Amino acid sequence: MNQAIGVIDSGVGGLTVAHELMRQLPRETLIYLGDTLRCPYGPRSEEEVRKFTWEMVDFLLEKDIKMLVVACNTATAFTLAELQEKLDIPVIGVIQPGARAAIKFTQNSNVGVIGTEGTIRSGAYTTALYNINLDIHVNALACPLFVPMVEQGILSGPKAKEVVEESLTTLLEDKQIDTLILGCTHYPLIKDTIQDVIGDKVMVISSSEETAREASTILEFRNLLNTATSSNPRHQFYTTGELNIFSKIAGSIFNESMDNFTTVTIEKAVIQ
Amino acid sequence: MNQAIGVIDSGVGGLTVAHELMRQLPRETLIYLGDTLRCPYGPRSEEEVRKFTWEMVDFLLEKDIKMLVVACNTATAFTLAELQEKLDIPVIGVIQPGARAAIKFTQNSNVGVIGTEGTIRSGAYTTALYNINLDIHVNALACPLFVPMVEQGILSGPKAKEVVEESLTTLLEDKQIDTLILGCTHYPLIKDTIQDVIGDKVMVISSSEETAREASTILEFRNLLNTATSSNPRHQFYTTGELNIFSKIAGSIFNESMDNFTTVTIEKAVIQ
Repeated sequence: MNQAIGVIDSGVGGLTVAHELMRQLPRETLIYLGDTLRCPYGPRSEEEVRKFTWEMVDFLLEKDIKMLVVACNTATAFTLAELQEKLDIPVIGVIQPGARAAIKFTQNSNVGVIGTEGTIRSGAYTTALYNINLDIHVNALACPLFVPMVEQGILSGPKAKEVVEESLTTLLEDKQIDTLILGCTHYPLIKDTIQDVIGDKVMVISSSEETAREASTILEFRNLLNTATSSNPRHQFYTTGELNIFSKIAGSIFNESMDNFTTVTIEKAVIQ
Repeated sequence: MNQAIGVIDSGVGGLTVAHELMRQLPRETLIYLGDTLRCPYGPRSEEEVRKFTWEMVDFLLEKDIKMLVVACNTATAFTLAELQEKLDIPVIGVIQPGARAAIKFTQNSNVGVIGTEGTIRSGAYTTALYNINLDIHVNALACPLFVPMVEQGILSGPKAKEVVEESLTTLLEDKQIDTLILGCTHYPLIKDTIQDVIGDKVMVISSSEETAREASTILEFRNLLNTATSSNPRHQFYTTGELNIFSKIAGSIFNESMDNFTTVTIEKAVIQ
């Protein structure tokens, strides 16, 4: 199956998922679409997030993808069930893998979750955790400033630390949590700062690595792995916004120059 | 879906998988069958392993399981594809999860695999690793003495260390491997001894934890999680052999007394 894996995100955060997919599935080809122009999705209504997500999905379906990874927590929270029901290809979200990793790691069943307003408001992490273990105690907190900060390229330094400290104030008062889920794929880009603020005793889980692992599991389970011996993946990256910030963030994630970026207008491309 | 998850193994090794399933999926009920009477499977022919495995599977299918976990590497190597093709329920083996974890952990792409003669002879780990990453270098070694030793209850001490040291001689000469897959579910029971012999620099991967994690992934993906709020699992454990050694090993895995063991004769129960 040499078709590509499609990856969608509201912006650059999903690149952390793409990076892990490339590392853990080196024979697979990715087609990535980041809706940087309309990022962040977090404060938007469910209806708007659903509309934008379907526009991205339609763009990728035209490219004959074999699997869809919804690398955005807000989009996962609002659309995963619907996408899984309506699409013929397997659809993986970022919420369930992070929840499962937290259940594996926590020793005292006290789990913190931080995410966008949309993700936290949806209660999707709490639902995912309870679906597996009813004894988990969840402390969920929205951090609406993180995504705009990351999309501006502020990933570390005093300004980043100040924003993280202020945002996490109420969570820092909870002395019980031993595991913190980064419930937004932008957050791994400021993971060091978050770990610094929350302290070494809390296991910080990036859902990106876990999502890539589960994508691998499902590909194999569904007999969709690319086992062609001459696999030489040529990934494609699309953004609805400016290439500058996209390339800068991508460079810091992949530690190499990426030359295959394209700006697309998906509203035009899709709503015809 | 309050049906049970069925778990089969050639003996007690699969209890390490059962333990992780109970920990990571506390709302799910397990029905375990260990073919202790005919253990080890490792030196047996493919035909014999297939016959015995199907006898175990038929025993569990009568109990209306919703998923089958083949918690035995030898049985996985010889029967997984066939079981996945012929059964209507999802079937998870122990080889692919361990292979995926090794790919996630290795930094230099040099992976060691130890297992029974049957597992190593089948080349199943090498195939599973290559299916995902062709650049992995695999050093595979059969350790036929480990399973009989574990089934006798010898898990540590000078005798165990001597057997492990002698068995791993050729692997110890390979200075490259940074990751070692325990390609047999009995081996986690002597993991400390193996880690001691192989040294701290090698990441030792127990496929049990990884298999439980992937079972959780597939259950959720297939909408088979038990989400009933009143879940109070009552696991059942069956063995074809003596209860004594089974209970002793189970006690050391679960750190609690287990009172729900039953001896069954699956040849009679199945071949009618």
